[in-house]
Amino acid sequence: MRDFSQIKVLAFDIFGTVVDWHSSIVQEIEIMNLAIDANQFALDWRVGYRPAMDKVLAGELPWTSIDDLHRMILDSLLIQYKIDRLSEAQIIHLNHVWHRLVPWQDSVKALEQLKEKYIICTLSNGNIRLLVDMARHAKLPWDYIFSAENFRAYKPSPKTYLGVAELLNIRPEQVMMVAAHHSDLEAARECGLHTAYIKRPLEFGSSRIKDVSPCVDNDLHATDLLDLVRLLDNSF
Amino acid sequence: MRDFSQIKVLAFDIFGTVVDWHSSIVQEIEIMNLAIDANQFALDWRVGYRPAMDKVLAGELPWTSIDDLHRMILDSLLIQYKIDRLSEAQIIHLNHVWHRLVPWQDSVKALEQLKEKYIICTLSNGNIRLLVDMARHAKLPWDYIFSAENFRAYKPSPKTYLGVAELLNIRPEQVMMVAAHHSDLEAARECGLHTAYIKRPLEFGSSRIKDVSPCVDNDLHATDLLDLVRLLDNSF
Repeated sequence: MRDFSQIKVLAFDIFGTVVDWHSSIVQEIEIMNLAIDANQFALDWRVGYRPAMDKVLAGELPWTSIDDLHRMILDSLLIQYKIDRLSEAQIIHLNHVWHRLVPWQDSVKALEQLKEKYIICTLSNGNIRLLVDMARHAKLPWDYIFSAENFRAYKPSPKTYLGVAELLNIRPEQVMMVAAHHSDLEAARECGLHTAYIKRPLEFGSSRIKDVSPCVDNDLHATDLLDLVRLLDNSF
Repeated sequence: MRDFSQIKVLAFDIFGTVVDWHSSIVQEIEIMNLAIDANQFALDWRVGYRPAMDKVLAGELPWTSIDDLHRMILDSLLIQYKIDRLSEAQIIHLNHVWHRLVPWQDSVKALEQLKEKYIICTLSNGNIRLLVDMARHAKLPWDYIFSAENFRAYKPSPKTYLGVAELLNIRPEQVMMVAAHHSDLEAARECGLHTAYIKRPLEFGSSRIKDVSPCVDNDLHATDLLDLVRLLDNSF
């Protein structure tokens, strides 16, 4: 059994890992009665996210917050889906749906338990205001909120993972990155962090079940965040 | 009556404003039975703080965290007070007393109330880890923790006050700086922030009552943080 007694900080990916972006967006779109495929719209919005961040990482775009990247993608989707009856205020409100994402059922309870033993923080590509609004809305009890905005670099840049350790004044191996995405964990591991994978087979909704096979390089492979509590408790 | 309806964020100074550094340090020193004047030791430790930060602001020292500045001052005080029986582990523990400062009696209750209506954050010269540990220890319910470390500049640098507005994506006048020190509020005001002064006559202990006379340039002048709640409620 591995010994995780040196771990002091748990750093959480947010979109898909702690909050259920897909169903939150589907629900808000359905309420708006836009007569479009809400499931597909949510998937299309999300799929534009990585290429947009990659443009920033590659220097093709100057530093741009996720709020602004989400808006760029949304503007093109409104054209693609032929949605022309929304006012500017309604579009701004819709774009801020990412501030109002709903946590997975296990998230808040597990975070409260983990906080008793660890410093719990976010490490998300979401901008600070988005993460602050989300924490208030969803009652996520973070000790600290780290955003790509703090480092002006998006994950998987090493600046983000190493920045968490530096600003919390601990060694990288004292941090465990928690995420539902192997690519995030792989980049964290290369920086010396421990890693825990969280299975979220419904991240993209029930129409597109996600492969949640384990990767042997991760330290832990948990069904959800309450399972992570159990796995960490059993590791001593 | 002034209208503060545009204010969305309250940014709090910490040492002296939210927590009582003087009595916290006096108490820990007294428990250590060092046979020294604990009151004077606490005052001497604190008085070394501003000159040390000014050296960083002037570029005479590279960026140095408050933990490290506190340690530099502590090391010289240990010589001055002829304290030579402490182990390195004990000195590290003593230096971290700043992570364990106790809030003023009104602070936690008032912050919980203010959080219902405003985004509440720190804006402190304390380093991030110090502020995170303090929030956990004292149960301070921050929405966000801003430290000089985020901006690599100490207050009263404009980078700090303007940085809060920029990273929360709002205008400076939507932020109210809350502090027990007129110099902090003056610098905030020059950056366009609103300002609230909190009277803390016992900041330096009962041997040196602080002058808490109002400055007319501040928007509010409160007896404590619960009084701030009342003044803000009455401002609409």
